[in-house]
Amino acid sequence: MDHSEGGEDIESTVDEAAAPREMKRNGSNFFDDKEAGMREPLLRRRTMNTTSQLAVVGANVCPIESLDYEIVENDLYKEDWRSRKKAQIFQYVVLKWTLALLIGLVTGLVGFFNNLAVENIAGFKLLLTSNLMLKHSYHKAFVVYAGCNLVLAAAAAALCAYVAPAAAGSGIPEVKAYLNGVDAYSILAPSTLFVKIFGSIGGVSAGFVLGKEGPMVHTGACIASLLGQGGSRKYRLTWTWLRYFKNDRDRRDLITCGAAAGVAAAFRAPVGGVLFALEEAASWWRSALLWRTFFTTAVVAVVLRTFIDFCRSRNCGLFGQGGLIMFDLSSSVPAYGTPDLIAVIVLGIVGGIFGSLYNFLIDKTLRTYSIFNERGAPFKILLTVAVSLLTSCCSYGLPWLAKCTPCPPDAHDQCPTIGRSGNYKNFQCPPNQYNDLASLFLNTNDDAIRNLFSGGTDNEFCLSTLFIFFIGVYCLGIVTYGIAVPSGLFIPVILAGASYGRLVGTFLGSLSKLDKGLFALLGAASFLGGTMRMTVSVCVILLELTNDLLMLPLVMLVLLVSKTVADCFNKGVYDQMVKMKGFPFMEAHAEPYMRNLVAGDVVSGPLITLSGVESVGNIVHAIRLTGHNGFPVVDEPPFSVVPELCGLVLRTHLLVLLKGKRFTKERVSTGAADVLQRFGAYDFAKAGSGKGVKLEEIDINEEEMEMYVDLHPITNRSPYTVAETMSLAKAAILFRELGLRHLCVVPKTPGRPPIVGILTRHDFMPEHILGLFPRIKHHG
Amino acid sequence: MDHSEGGEDIESTVDEAAAPREMKRNGSNFFDDKEAGMREPLLRRRTMNTTSQLAVVGANVCPIESLDYEIVENDLYKEDWRSRKKAQIFQYVVLKWTLALLIGLVTGLVGFFNNLAVENIAGFKLLLTSNLMLKHSYHKAFVVYAGCNLVLAAAAAALCAYVAPAAAGSGIPEVKAYLNGVDAYSILAPSTLFVKIFGSIGGVSAGFVLGKEGPMVHTGACIASLLGQGGSRKYRLTWTWLRYFKNDRDRRDLITCGAAAGVAAAFRAPVGGVLFALEEAASWWRSALLWRTFFTTAVVAVVLRTFIDFCRSRNCGLFGQGGLIMFDLSSSVPAYGTPDLIAVIVLGIVGGIFGSLYNFLIDKTLRTYSIFNERGAPFKILLTVAVSLLTSCCSYGLPWLAKCTPCPPDAHDQCPTIGRSGNYKNFQCPPNQYNDLASLFLNTNDDAIRNLFSGGTDNEFCLSTLFIFFIGVYCLGIVTYGIAVPSGLFIPVILAGASYGRLVGTFLGSLSKLDKGLFALLGAASFLGGTMRMTVSVCVILLELTNDLLMLPLVMLVLLVSKTVADCFNKGVYDQMVKMKGFPFMEAHAEPYMRNLVAGDVVSGPLITLSGVESVGNIVHAIRLTGHNGFPVVDEPPFSVVPELCGLVLRTHLLVLLKGKRFTKERVSTGAADVLQRFGAYDFAKAGSGKGVKLEEIDINEEEMEMYVDLHPITNRSPYTVAETMSLAKAAILFRELGLRHLCVVPKTPGRPPIVGILTRHDFMPEHILGLFPRIKHHG
Repeated sequence: MDHSEGGEDIESTVDEAAAPREMKRNGSNFFDDKEAGMREPLLRRRTMNTTSQLAVVGANVCPIESLDYEIVENDLYKEDWRSRKKAQIFQYVVLKWTLALLIGLVTGLVGFFNNLAVENIAGFKLLLTSNLMLKHSYHKAFVVYAGCNLVLAAAAAALCAYVAPAAAGSGIPEVKAYLNGVDAYSILAPSTLFVKIFGSIGGVSAGFVLGKEGPMVHTGACIASLLGQGGSRKYRLTWTWLRYFKNDRDRRDLITCGAAAGVAAAFRAPVGGVLFALEEAASWWRSALLWRTFFTTAVVAVVLRTFIDFCRSRNCGLFGQGGLIMFDLSSSVPAYGTPDLIAVIVLGIVGGIFGSLYNFLIDKTLRTYSIFNERGAPFKILLTVAVSLLTSCCSYGLPWLAKCTPCPPDAHDQCPTIGRSGNYKNFQCPPNQYNDLASLFLNTNDDAIRNLFSGGTDNEFCLSTLFIFFIGVYCLGIVTYGIAVPSGLFIPVILAGASYGRLVGTFLGSLSKLDKGLFALLGAASFLGGTMRMTVSVCVILLELTNDLLMLPLVMLVLLVSKTVADCFNKGVYDQMVKMKGFPFMEAHAEPYMRNLVAGDVVSGPLITLSGVESVGNIVHAIRLTGHNGFPVVDEPPFSVVPELCGLVLRTHLLVLLKGKRFTKERVSTGAADVLQRFGAYDFAKAGSGKGVKLEEIDINEEEMEMYVDLHPITNRSPYTVAETMSLAKAAILFRELGLRHLCVVPKTPGRPPIVGILTRHDFMPEHILGLFPRIKHHG
Repeated sequence: MDHSEGGEDIESTVDEAAAPREMKRNGSNFFDDKEAGMREPLLRRRTMNTTSQLAVVGANVCPIESLDYEIVENDLYKEDWRSRKKAQIFQYVVLKWTLALLIGLVTGLVGFFNNLAVENIAGFKLLLTSNLMLKHSYHKAFVVYAGCNLVLAAAAAALCAYVAPAAAGSGIPEVKAYLNGVDAYSILAPSTLFVKIFGSIGGVSAGFVLGKEGPMVHTGACIASLLGQGGSRKYRLTWTWLRYFKNDRDRRDLITCGAAAGVAAAFRAPVGGVLFALEEAASWWRSALLWRTFFTTAVVAVVLRTFIDFCRSRNCGLFGQGGLIMFDLSSSVPAYGTPDLIAVIVLGIVGGIFGSLYNFLIDKTLRTYSIFNERGAPFKILLTVAVSLLTSCCSYGLPWLAKCTPCPPDAHDQCPTIGRSGNYKNFQCPPNQYNDLASLFLNTNDDAIRNLFSGGTDNEFCLSTLFIFFIGVYCLGIVTYGIAVPSGLFIPVILAGASYGRLVGTFLGSLSKLDKGLFALLGAASFLGGTMRMTVSVCVILLELTNDLLMLPLVMLVLLVSKTVADCFNKGVYDQMVKMKGFPFMEAHAEPYMRNLVAGDVVSGPLITLSGVESVGNIVHAIRLTGHNGFPVVDEPPFSVVPELCGLVLRTHLLVLLKGKRFTKERVSTGAADVLQRFGAYDFAKAGSGKGVKLEEIDINEEEMEMYVDLHPITNRSPYTVAETMSLAKAAILFRELGLRHLCVVPKTPGRPPIVGILTRHDFMPEHILGLFPRIKHHG
């Protein structure tokens, strides 16, 4: 019955010096997007840590956001809740909506700026090139074209490699992981935002086969995070009202809004943005959040519309076509019969196969690149430059394979295009002829998609052109993702899918009555279904992109077929990347083998507990030696009859309490009143990443170490608990559904210490469980 | 330490005879839609039951579906899981998708049939009337018109009153409550389905201001439920494969699919259907469900398209206008400036006020009607007939107030319409003139909406016409909802909103450049936002109804404004009805005052517990005396050192076990093997409503009553538990998020009986808590 007072000493079996070192190594490996996580998931690489899972969770290795619905039920909180005035609640509501408005405004603005910059830079580059080509200076044109691309690519890669490595790649997996409760290092930092915006502009302008959509989602999330934190404390931009948002739940809500706003800004698809956030990004969802997200994306739509209208009437440089509907297809006649349906199903099946192959190849490429990228920033830039040269060669070289086509007499566009980045590229052709492959390759990605989607132009592209373009874009897309540049996956997938769809449509010729532009749309849908595995959101995004509601049944059908086919082979591309990066992502469902285990099976000790009134020395010891984020507090005989679990205390709260230095000589309970005198409730509010109180900042002398402090006021008295005999599957569901960070495991039988252990996210990871019970794998 | 073995005797303080009587009364009051629940919520009317909340929950009063994610972790289940072959899993997956397909097919078919029947019946009626009017037999015309309406209305009301009272009203609140875990009586029965389909056809054809959309949602849910149960066991339509679906979770998933299919069929809006199910209907959501729902609505869209195409080429009688897009608006030019935006915001504010007023008035009307409806079926029919006469008088009488308007020379429709139910009604006017009010009133609701939404017809309706129609429809809509006929709310709200919007548009005249049809759309959106309080789904449904993507930002804006305004006054109309009907609906969030209570505060005893090996007599006693749905099982000294909580056993499982009669003379644990010999896992699967084993069916003699039975194999060994000191708010969140039916409350300190009580849904209802702690209300 008598159990040891706290277990701190046992924990010291872990070498004190070794622990931080190990953390350091993991830290740098883990979060540097390109340097690590590419070959093997983090969890498998880490030595199986049976002594203390907690140490890993709490440490800087992987600072897991406590995204729990858990209301920290300590005295301070209750006091705060009681005293909260109506005015404060009003402030909170007003601020919440103001923030949503601001996120929408800023994201819409950034999205428009991004678009404007890309169209102008890329347009200028293409203008230069085509002017030189008109003068038949083909070599010079290539040098200019490749040179521009190279400079832009190198600049973007340098930004990425030196300023914010976390900005490389799509960013969607990171946002997804964040919303699941995994806060990867500096993923929402201001520097990341900066690099994401300008790196993305550079990357897209450089003619890479990559998109701005993924980066826009990440940008939106960063904007939301920064606005929620009230800018930077460094520059004194913090606003007292924002203290209400210093908790995980509000922060997560803001970031969900940001991600939705990003999609809305990238595709000009407000409803699609909401659905994307719902289907792909968020792990928890409330209907109040739906409503706020909807508001944010509505603001984005209004902002975008205003700017596009502004650009239509005045001059925004080379800002191109496309209103609020980026690729307007609404003219096409929707009449289809059984042969069309069969064609569409075949399209979906093949699209699904290509899509899953895409995911597989991207995975392999990323793992290969990571060897190179790990060597340091110069290597990253080198790789980017190499890929840029390859892209330039393809874009400029491959069109030479295509024959010149006479301009169609009824072309609604200028043919051949002169003086701007448009349809019907002249390239090497004589006047009144155009090179159809150049119209696709030597163009911005948006314009290429617009050309592929265009209806009523059945003979614009010949079969060989589409074939070459499809192969080229498919391979370049795979090769490009993984370089140290912010790069989205939507546009490459849509490009490849649209060319594949149009290829099939052209191949079928008169067998199908469908327009070739519609085939391109269906091909894009099949590829999106095959790689992303989203259904409703892709459907709505495509609808909002093309304004073609009558095609909805066909788009739904092709998405269903391709997703089903692709699901037979592998997981969606974002899930795959989350796994590859080693984020401890909690799935919504429990694995089947968890049903045969109980919570007690995976809890690993020894456990560090604190007393209700604990000596300062012990607390400092516990904080210093371990990286635990939460410590169970146990009340013992002077304060209770038998030892009983009082609750859970958070590391950050302990640090704030220690900094306050309200210690007592005697071991007595001082109660909440004393703590309340010293602290306000918001002193314990969650600080921004890296901004909390650190142990090193607290100067505690020898005498104080001997003193006591009452932990009751800051203890969460109502932690969620499970019995040690609880099925692990059900414990996992509890943990996931309630978004917990710590789950206390209590003994089934009386007469033992009141807490057996704490389950954290890592304890539910398949790698951990299968490491403890290797036989499970075989028994299924 | 020694606690009483089971608490069954204490329960007998509740009069055995009184309990069933009380249940009976509540039962009939509670579920008969029109007869009860209208004046006061059930929970407040019930005498405050402090002896046992459990008795109420378990009884037939309100058979709450155990919609929990709770995996029943008993030995049988585990055994079943281990032995489940791959083939079975394959069967399960195939069946799941087949069912989704079937739900889509059948719902699509029913939706189309409904439409076809309504258009033919109503069209024929209007044709007769207008032919008589052409002959100037105005009185005869009124008699025919009102007579047709009367007969149809009386037929629908008779069906509803005598066959299935549960079919009256919208059905959306009931479906919403079911998906939250409340299974109202016979809400998904075959008779309800039958009446819902034919009653809805009758009601809509009778010219009432009501819609078919709500009933379609309910119809879809019924179809899904029946398909999932494999039709009726009576007619031997059960299929062995369907045993996999005999659990709450799969049943709930099917019904979600059905509800989505219903919306998709009613509005021809597949994506809108998915979003409706997500935003309004479902309480729990998984991404796998999104995907299956999407599939179902895609099937509905394909079915509808096929039939509409079929009707276009051949003859479907009077089947009217409208392809897959019901009200095509896509022609309108989307150009708007600041004055338009201001107009739209004002429109939204006023729409929000009118919307919340609508909710308020509907509430009052329902409560008034319930007095009448409670008196029996004849009274219900009488009320319906009275409302029908009123509607006929309004529809036929009010158009006489309008002046004749000369036909516009550029009318794209025939003017005046002759021989079918169309635009530009001639009514009393001379040739080449039309009565604009008759075009709205003397028409089907769909055609009236189409007329209001029509673009480019700015002068078709004059100000006074729109004003009269708005007032008329607004009042008739309120008066109609509540009669004993299946009646949806969407169409009345859209009608009132569209006329209001067009009225504002016409009033503003040239101040706004927007088309009057667009104003009608925005008005409809503002009313929908004001009454339903849905955002994303209404937005997408309107988009799919009108195919007007460019209006999206404005529609979003108006929805946001009107919802915000209306939320200041009252709750959404469906939430209001759920509350009025007294369903114990679990909100997603905990009420603020729950933070000041702990779980132990609301648990009410005495508790009935069973031993691990219990005497048959005790079990029969417990089942007979109480209506509890779950009993805690406590292991005692012969089987464990100290009394400890073994788990929870369900009433239905106990009944199956008793029926199996594997009793032993001695009090020994027989283990799982013995039970497994006698039962298959599916013997314990959840039976359809009213189909489980009943106590009366089991014949147990005196000798058997003395024998023992081992409860361990059927005990759920891992029930979710909370400590009695757990904050009630957190317990509520646990209960809601995991969709539990029983939550065990365990003692905090050792040395007491191992279970304090069980929390059920009713214990979290505000009425219960505020009844126990009346002071809370004042303290806020």
